[in-house]
Amino acid sequence: MKAYVYVTLKRSVLDPQGQTIQSALKKMQYQGVDDVRQGKYFILTLEDALDAATAHTEVERIAREVLTNPVIEEFTFRLED
Amino acid sequence: MKAYVYVTLKRSVLDPQGQTIQSALKKMQYQGVDDVRQGKYFILTLEDALDAATAHTEVERIAREVLTNPVIEEFTFRLED
Repeated sequence: MKAYVYVTLKRSVLDPQGQTIQSALKKMQYQGVDDVRQGKYFILTLEDALDAATAHTEVERIAREVLTNPVIEEFTFRLED
Repeated sequence: MKAYVYVTLKRSVLDPQGQTIQSALKKMQYQGVDDVRQGKYFILTLEDALDAATAHTEVERIAREVLTNPVIEEFTFRLED
């Protein structure tokens, strides 16, 4: 089973990296992009022995406690067989 | 419209950052994670004026030419209204 964890800055937090990309795109003549936010993305390969419920709990715990800084970031995740 | 672009290292490329996270998780007693790969994740807010076909072409071009290093990375993306 694989878990995909997406970590992004909270809406209220400035994202200078995203802003830099957005202004670079504009200078490079790419059209139609109003805003860019950058985040992180983790692919966790889980042991086959784990059942779906345990995997859900464990991945949620890992995402919350290790992969995310709760002060400025938030996360979503999904599991896939 | 929003575009979500996911950039990951190619399978054949070592991911020391992911390996570090994986061994850290092991040391911290989290169970059941065999492998971790880290990637980048971009949320592009597109102008409302763009139609779906143009948006698809433009986001694909931005992902390929700007957001991804084609030597070591690959990308996927999806559009959402």
